[in-house]
Amino acid sequence: MTGDRVTLCECFARDGLQHEPGFVATAAKIALIDAFADAGFPRIEATSYSHPAQVPAFRDAGEVLAGIRRAPGVFYKATCPNLRAVERAKADLATGHGANELSLLVSATEGHTARNLRSTRAAQWAGVEDMAHAASGHARLVGVISVAFGCPIEGAVDPGVVAADAARFASLGVGIVALGDTTGLATPRTVRAMFARLHAALPGTVFVAHFHNTRGTGIANCIAALDAGCRHFDTSFGGVGGHPSSIHYGEGQTGNVVTEDLVDLLESCGVRTGINLDRMMAASRLCETALGRPLNSMVARAGLRAPEAAHA
Amino acid sequence: MTGDRVTLCECFARDGLQHEPGFVATAAKIALIDAFADAGFPRIEATSYSHPAQVPAFRDAGEVLAGIRRAPGVFYKATCPNLRAVERAKADLATGHGANELSLLVSATEGHTARNLRSTRAAQWAGVEDMAHAASGHARLVGVISVAFGCPIEGAVDPGVVAADAARFASLGVGIVALGDTTGLATPRTVRAMFARLHAALPGTVFVAHFHNTRGTGIANCIAALDAGCRHFDTSFGGVGGHPSSIHYGEGQTGNVVTEDLVDLLESCGVRTGINLDRMMAASRLCETALGRPLNSMVARAGLRAPEAAHA
Repeated sequence: MTGDRVTLCECFARDGLQHEPGFVATAAKIALIDAFADAGFPRIEATSYSHPAQVPAFRDAGEVLAGIRRAPGVFYKATCPNLRAVERAKADLATGHGANELSLLVSATEGHTARNLRSTRAAQWAGVEDMAHAASGHARLVGVISVAFGCPIEGAVDPGVVAADAARFASLGVGIVALGDTTGLATPRTVRAMFARLHAALPGTVFVAHFHNTRGTGIANCIAALDAGCRHFDTSFGGVGGHPSSIHYGEGQTGNVVTEDLVDLLESCGVRTGINLDRMMAASRLCETALGRPLNSMVARAGLRAPEAAHA
Repeated sequence: MTGDRVTLCECFARDGLQHEPGFVATAAKIALIDAFADAGFPRIEATSYSHPAQVPAFRDAGEVLAGIRRAPGVFYKATCPNLRAVERAKADLATGHGANELSLLVSATEGHTARNLRSTRAAQWAGVEDMAHAASGHARLVGVISVAFGCPIEGAVDPGVVAADAARFASLGVGIVALGDTTGLATPRTVRAMFARLHAALPGTVFVAHFHNTRGTGIANCIAALDAGCRHFDTSFGGVGGHPSSIHYGEGQTGNVVTEDLVDLLESCGVRTGINLDRMMAASRLCETALGRPLNSMVARAGLRAPEAAHA
């Protein structure tokens, strides 16, 4: 793995904040996103064009996107749940302050689509097709496939369905597809098989590993994906965020893969992330300050690996 | 990895409890160890023959070993820091109530030996030789090599030193050697290289992976060790325990690899642990009750993977 380069997407500002009980002030969000860019993240999930009444955490989507400094070459992503969201995104883009990456979501099973999106797969795909056509040429598009590695409602997910969904995204001009392990059911075995299959089937598509640490195996799954050729990962400072439906099994404590811990590990393995480690740790402290509590990064507590030990 | 079998050593009762501020009652320790055996753990770290005044957590070593039910085929391990400890272990064995596995410790660097053992490597090895001779024929012996994957004081550790230490253990009749990632510096890359080298150099020695989750990568390192042929792992319920010198880098929050999370993952990958999952979760709750707080298992919060999803 030494010498490889990977592309990380920092998800704290959207996936991370989506289920926080308190509203994080717009100015704080802007400072966080700018800190992420300063640390070197090439992709940053910035906000969501969800309906402001339904997801009040992102009622300031336009203000956030207008307020951030634009680091050259960085993609600022906004999630778009419906056509209205795409229209808002296009309006902001027309002012020069929009998100230059938009994400569109499907779920791999009917059960999860019904529970999480209150829709059917056919209806969801019809909406995604409309959104992709409307957004085409305005921003880079990312497709997201939820419960790609297992569904809390239906159980096993056929990798063939995931491959077909990825191909459908590709046919719509969506060249980046994130595979979501929504409730933390992936294992290194299923991860390796999935990425090997998808890379072989769709060599022109970039696949992103979006793992949740619901059962403590997020980083192990990232390493398995790396071994299988994946070079794009979604993470969140302090592990904040992750899908709440993991609560399905009980008390449920979800969480994204922890940015600080994965970056420290990758850099220690000689995998280049492009992240400045000192600025990353400064951003880590900023995230804890913004939420007013210690977050789940082990590296934030223990410190980075000593370079001389890590590069033995 | 499907179809492989692994041997786990449950370390909660010794490594886990060593640095707990409160004394866990002898009866509670006995109930925990019996619960671990009932769940199917083939090796259980039960106590330590440390000096009772220096490590009061184990002042009841003899009582614990005399009180547990002896499950057939299970190895109950006690750590022995010096010759006096081995003599106590032999006296207990003579009564029929001793530990049938004893562990002896060295540290791979002079710096860590000085800091942690207040000794030199030469003196430590001389002591270990005396202990191995004294214990020979009385119990199965396990050698432990601390800071095998990196040292918080000296940095990089030469894998050749670790290989030489393992060979020295073998020459003393110590056929099981645990490699300790004492302050959480190992990476999947260094783990794979280490186990590949040691398995090639000493095919007659059983190597045990003893990783700490200090930087969040304990389970990723276990999977790397598994890939490199390792079939023996040390874990602790709730991740309790782990070496306190990881505090060297800052606030430090250490921890062993979490039993519940690793077993859930391995079984989901088709790797057989021999553990009964329901009894494991019951033991997990017993550990939380014994310490009076929630511990660090993610699976204890989220629940086991659904079998139908895990075995997809």
